[in-house]
Amino acid sequence: MADETLDGFLEALASAAPAPGGGAAAAVQVALGASLVSMVANLTIGKPRYAEHEATMVGARDEATRLRRDALGLADADAVAFTAVTDAYRLPKETVQDKAARTAAIQQALIGAAEVPLRTAAAAAEVVGLCQRILDGANVNVLSDVAVAAASARAALDSAAINVRINLASMTDAATRDATAAELDKYLSSLAGADSVVRAVGDRIGS
Amino acid sequence: MADETLDGFLEALASAAPAPGGGAAAAVQVALGASLVSMVANLTIGKPRYAEHEATMVGARDEATRLRRDALGLADADAVAFTAVTDAYRLPKETVQDKAARTAAIQQALIGAAEVPLRTAAAAAEVVGLCQRILDGANVNVLSDVAVAAASARAALDSAAINVRINLASMTDAATRDATAAELDKYLSSLAGADSVVRAVGDRIGS
Repeated sequence: MADETLDGFLEALASAAPAPGGGAAAAVQVALGASLVSMVANLTIGKPRYAEHEATMVGARDEATRLRRDALGLADADAVAFTAVTDAYRLPKETVQDKAARTAAIQQALIGAAEVPLRTAAAAAEVVGLCQRILDGANVNVLSDVAVAAASARAALDSAAINVRINLASMTDAATRDATAAELDKYLSSLAGADSVVRAVGDRIGS
Repeated sequence: MADETLDGFLEALASAAPAPGGGAAAAVQVALGASLVSMVANLTIGKPRYAEHEATMVGARDEATRLRRDALGLADADAVAFTAVTDAYRLPKETVQDKAARTAAIQQALIGAAEVPLRTAAAAAEVVGLCQRILDGANVNVLSDVAVAAASARAALDSAAINVRINLASMTDAATRDATAAELDKYLSSLAGADSVVRAVGDRIGS
């Protein structure tokens, strides 16, 4: 997906092809947020005025670069996991054995399909953490970009949560379902952090 | 920007080059939302079960296609408007005449730089309106994508608001500043609509 043009990717997203869909969009939201964290760090590093924040910015830039790459990988992984679910639903259901195998395959595929947005939510929560970490020491000329990064990560959290839950709704194994839901909740606690970054930047812009 | 690869665009966003930055990211958030509205409409159109919503879906798809193209144009326009501001700040300020000309050029450029995110906010508000319009009649298999579209448009609203305000903060003409702020507020009333779409989808998924 990374080698597609922006226009080509959006065209594929808009088309009747079921993938790429909301899972890939959520991953791109993470990548947008991570990229803006890198930009802010890059425009702060090396400036004498922000020297005391140098180590924070270098660390944040490196993590953000990793998260951007991971996010693009998740966009691809989502399409694969999604296709596995639709393939499983298309398995034969003639005999009792067919039906049992099909049910097992669907449940296995649903676990994979919930796993990708769960990792997207984890990456989004990491981006929110980076926004919080760079907020105080960021070059004031690009402070607004910290807010845009947080808003993008927030969208990714909301999107990934919906994408996890839609898969949980069809999952029959209660233990896996509960464990996944609990892990998701952990990442969703970053929603408040994202909102507070957006608000803090708004206050500092003061308009 | 539309012809860049997704990876190339994100790399440019992450770099120390001041553009593309948060303005382009906000425009891409609009484009993600608009694309998902198109996808949902495309996967609903022609299905007998959703026949009564056919006209709504065709209308929404057409508007979403236009909004996606407009959004990519705004991503480019933002870089141009941003560069005009930084160019104006670099004008000579030796003489009294220099200073007056520079101040006028900066103020003119700031109006242009606030105009682009204002149009981005307007487009994001339109995407939220489309999400609300397709919510009831959407193919239930892609209901989650309506929520992701709304979450993306919400991020675009928050991002564009910050980008408008950062330009308003340096603008000296009170009439233009107040008119721009009032128009922005009008679009920001769609934030609640975006949230209610995300919540409604979450409730219908019921997990």
